[in-house]
Amino acid sequence: MAIQDTDATADIIPDFSKGLLPAIVQDDATGEVLMLAFMNEQAFRKTLETGEAHYWSRSRNELWHKGETSGHVQKVRALRLDCDNDAILLLVSQIGGAACHTGRQSCFYRECRDGKVHFCSPKIFDPEQVYGKRKF
Amino acid sequence: MAIQDTDATADIIPDFSKGLLPAIVQDDATGEVLMLAFMNEQAFRKTLETGEAHYWSRSRNELWHKGETSGHVQKVRALRLDCDNDAILLLVSQIGGAACHTGRQSCFYRECRDGKVHFCSPKIFDPEQVYGKRKF
Repeated sequence: MAIQDTDATADIIPDFSKGLLPAIVQDDATGEVLMLAFMNEQAFRKTLETGEAHYWSRSRNELWHKGETSGHVQKVRALRLDCDNDAILLLVSQIGGAACHTGRQSCFYRECRDGKVHFCSPKIFDPEQVYGKRKF
Repeated sequence: MAIQDTDATADIIPDFSKGLLPAIVQDDATGEVLMLAFMNEQAFRKTLETGEAHYWSRSRNELWHKGETSGHVQKVRALRLDCDNDAILLLVSQIGGAACHTGRQSCFYRECRDGKVHFCSPKIFDPEQVYGKRKF
């Protein structure tokens, strides 16, 4: 069955008039969802300009170049936008192999499945060795 | 190298004191990110109780049982929580094959890769046939 594509335009223009927008970060190679952060227009532009993920840190209230301290940056391979233009999906290569400040591959490392909670994402590094005693 | 798991507890208790929390919805079988919505505690509880995804609709300001009208519900196979307890990941089976109100498999159907924008998610149904002339 052929279905027309008339309702869609191929622009990628997030609507930042809605405020900070959630950005889902997914591993481009494996499909694992690594983290969720927020972007404003400045973070979005810096991401496009540099090819490395930038977010808006709500706790520090400043632009956040993910991995700037540790070197564990996220190389953006592709970028998707949702139907309402208010959620962003980044497909990345995570340098260092872990997106989470706990050293785990994914921030979503706890899973409930079949009524049981288990850890679903491996620990890649010891955060103290990467970040020292820095508090998050 | 063995790395201790001492920083993690295996509870799944979202922190709704932070307000509405973003919920990423991922296809449990394929890993495709289907949509992003928001949950409050009521939506989270209804999701656990029923095994079908419930969200909080910010536009209608009401509990939203996804697929209630169309029958295209999301059967929750697993649920993950992030390190800060403020982002949720649902792994679902999407009944009807499409999560987006446009009839596409994923709401994230526009992708920019290698400098080119293209449609990355197929259209599964004609929304007029499923929803009629309903406005979103």
